[in-house]
Parts: sequence; C-alpha cells; structure tokens
Amino acid sequence: LQADAAPSLVFVPHLPGAGDEFALPPEEVHYLRRVCRARPGDRVRASDGAGTLASLELLSLADHGAGRVIERSFQAGDRQAWVLCGAPEGHRADWLVEKLAELGVRVFQPLELERARFDEASSRRERWERLTVAALRQSRSAWRLEIRPPVGLAEALAAVPDGANRWIGDREGERGLTPPGRSISVGVIGPSQGLAVHERERLADGGFRAIALADNRLRAETAALAWAAWWASGTS
Amino acid sequence: LQADAAPSLVFVPHLPGAGDEFALPPEEVHYLRRVCRARPGDRVRASDGAGTLASLELLSLADHGAGRVIERSFQAGDRQAWVLCGAPEGHRADWLVEKLAELGVRVFQPLELERARFDEASSRRERWERLTVAALRQSRSAWRLEIRPPVGLAEALAAVPDGANRWIGDREGERGLTPPGRSISVGVIGPSQGLAVHERERLADGGFRAIALADNRLRAETAALAWAAWWASGTS
Repeated sequence: LQADAAPSLVFVPHLPGAGDEFALPPEEVHYLRRVCRARPGDRVRASDGAGTLASLELLSLADHGAGRVIERSFQAGDRQAWVLCGAPEGHRADWLVEKLAELGVRVFQPLELERARFDEASSRRERWERLTVAALRQSRSAWRLEIRPPVGLAEALAAVPDGANRWIGDREGERGLTPPGRSISVGVIGPSQGLAVHERERLADGGFRAIALADNRLRAETAALAWAAWWASGTS
Repeated sequence: LQADAAPSLVFVPHLPGAGDEFALPPEEVHYLRRVCRARPGDRVRASDGAGTLASLELLSLADHGAGRVIERSFQAGDRQAWVLCGAPEGHRADWLVEKLAELGVRVFQPLELERARFDEASSRRERWERLTVAALRQSRSAWRLEIRPPVGLAEALAAVPDGANRWIGDREGERGLTPPGRSISVGVIGPSQGLAVHERERLADGGFRAIALADNRLRAETAALAWAAWWASGTS
C-alpha cells in the first residue's frame, strides 16, 4: 500500500514534462518534510503558478530534493480578476496580498495615486511573494497571484486588456450586481484618503462602473477584499 | 462660521435624548482630540452601536469631556448577517473580527467544534471589543458587531432565529447565488481542519444550504470574510 503524503501542493516554477525528473526547490523540500511529513516514494501535487498542475513522485527529500512528474494538466483560467488598489494604511497590504491570493485573484497592481503612495511596496516585495506561495499551497491553485510594481493610474489603465469588465468600488455605486463570467474583471479601489477628482474622472471616462460593496464605508484593503470576494462568488 | 471637526464618528454606548448633556467616554475624548483634531463647539456624529446615530455638539474636551445631543435617529437594521465560525489558526481571528465589523456583520459567534477550539477567545476578548469600536468609527455605522462567547454547535444553532436564511460555506456548494434581502442571514464557516461528519449532518438537518464562495480552498477566516462580503454586496 503506497500511502500518500498529507494533502499538499508544492510550488515548482519550472515543471518539466511527464516522466522527467527535476530538482525540488529547497523551500518546498522543507515544507514537504516539516509540514506535510512527506517521505520519498510519496505522491504529491504541484503547481507552477502559471496554470499547470502536476502529480509528482518524490524521489528524494535530502537537502537537494528531487521529484518526477507523473502527469500534468493545464487549467486555462479564462475567468480572471485584477485588483488595482491604492495604498492601504500601515502593514495592511500584507494581509490584502494573502487574501487576494487565496481568493484566486490573478493580478495585484498597486496604484500610486495623488493622495497615497505605496512607500512600502519595494521593501515588502519579498514578503509578498512568500505570501503568494503560501496561499498557492493553501488553496491548491494552478495560478499564483502576480504582484506588479506600483505604477500611476495612467500606466495601470493602459495595461488593462480591451474587453475587460471594469469596476470601481464606490459607496454611491450600484448594488446587487452579478459578477461577470468567463472574462477579465478589473476592480479599482481607491486609497483610504479617497481618489482625487481627476482620478475619478479618468476612471469614468475609461468605462469603469461604480459598484457599492457594502452599506458601510470600508478601508481600502477591506474594499479590495470585498470586491474580490464578490467576484469569486460568481461563475464562469 | 462654525467649522466642524474632520469627518468623524464617536462611540457612545448610552446616548441620551435630544438636548441632553452627557459625559464623553475618555477613549472618545482622546480620539476626538488626537485623531480628529476636534475642538469644543465642533459638531460630530455619534453612534451607540445599537442602531442609534446622533449629531452632537462638543462642550468640553478636557480630561472629562462632555457633549450635547442635537438630534438622534434610529436605523432599524432589518437586514442582518450573523457569522458562526470555527477557529482560524493563530491570531487570524483578530483581523476577522475587524473585517466582519467593517462589512456590517451584526453577530460573530465563535464555534467550538470537534476539530478546533477557540482557545484564544477569552484572552482576546478585550482586543476584539476595541477592534469593533475602531471599525464602528471607521465605517460610521449605527450598529456595532456583537461578539458572543464561544459555544458548541447545538447551542449556537438554538440561538438562530426562526425564519433566518441559513448558509454553510462549502467548496462543493452552489455558485452564483443572490444574497438575501431584508432578513437575518446566518453563515456557518468550518474551521481550517474542517467540520466533522456529524456536524455537517446537523447543519444539513437544520436547513443550512451549501454555498461555494470561491474556486479555491479557503482558510477559515478568508471563507468567513468572503461570505460576509457576498452578503454585503446584496440589497434590501
């Protein structure tokens, strides 16, 4: 009887083809040994964070671990959410990153806006990447949250694909809307200090539709989370 | 010209009638002086956290502050959400409390379940109450989140009002559901370790409908937040 390791998923950025052996990243070896109590011979699942899931056989869990791909499959992930968000206060962006990753958001684009800057973004970058990997393992997802460097509104909007559904979190917006299906949905959330008038106008001109996410006034990170959860509750 | 203080709301548990003077709680005096930069003569809003909002004139912001109620109104809050939640890991319940409060959830009922206990609940109680007050100020809400002491599932279910809408977060549940309007909605979220079979059966017998909150597997606190955000996106 081949017992498998505790339910687990490891992050392997460059997954080879079926049948191929490869080196396991040291962090994943640590995770498999210490957290999953896995042993050589066990089968586990892996994700490359870019749509590919694989079943692996663990060959070695020594300092330099090794695995072999048994089979792999690609999940297209045509239903995507992008969050374009002004700076939350303090370290609240940390948990925002974790929660957006868990909910299956594809892109987190920090926005540099007139009333709030992402001063922390460069110093927190490494921590944020670790959080997205932890969330990938936790949620067993084929896709990892992509964190982009902070940019201004014009640059962020230029990167939004044609045909994407566009939303802006706004307490005065519409309620009771149905989340879009198989498409890219982009949600813009202002910073705690609010959007400047010219920023609001640019978003309205860009076809962003105002959606009210709750009765209450929300902090920036709560609004971003609420928009992502609203999106996640929908279907393809 | 009577300048008002920066947009602000203070928490005054026992708001007297219009025209009456009363002592301001010391924490609110501190908040008004240090955060809002308010001065005697300013007008601010107050909430008693139990449905009443008031407009106040600040009479004194000395160590023992005082205010006078100018007018008051009651918000019935017939549309309610209750979250019955198994224990999240570590200190993650702290931000869960904060976010549920911001989203306008009425009741947070920690659940003692077979696979997870709320060991922290008594020691964190004071902190949680502070978080609900901060969220009340932040969200300018008439209602404060009520945090109940942890109880077992049977006791928690016995407290659910007849006629409440009943939901259980479940990855295998239904998608694309519309949040209920003017009524009490109760969402049950299992702990990270999952619900035991007999707990699931009891909930199914109790009329709890399975709702899938995201494609991904979610941590307990993320699922609770996602359910609350789904509810908050609906209308009366």
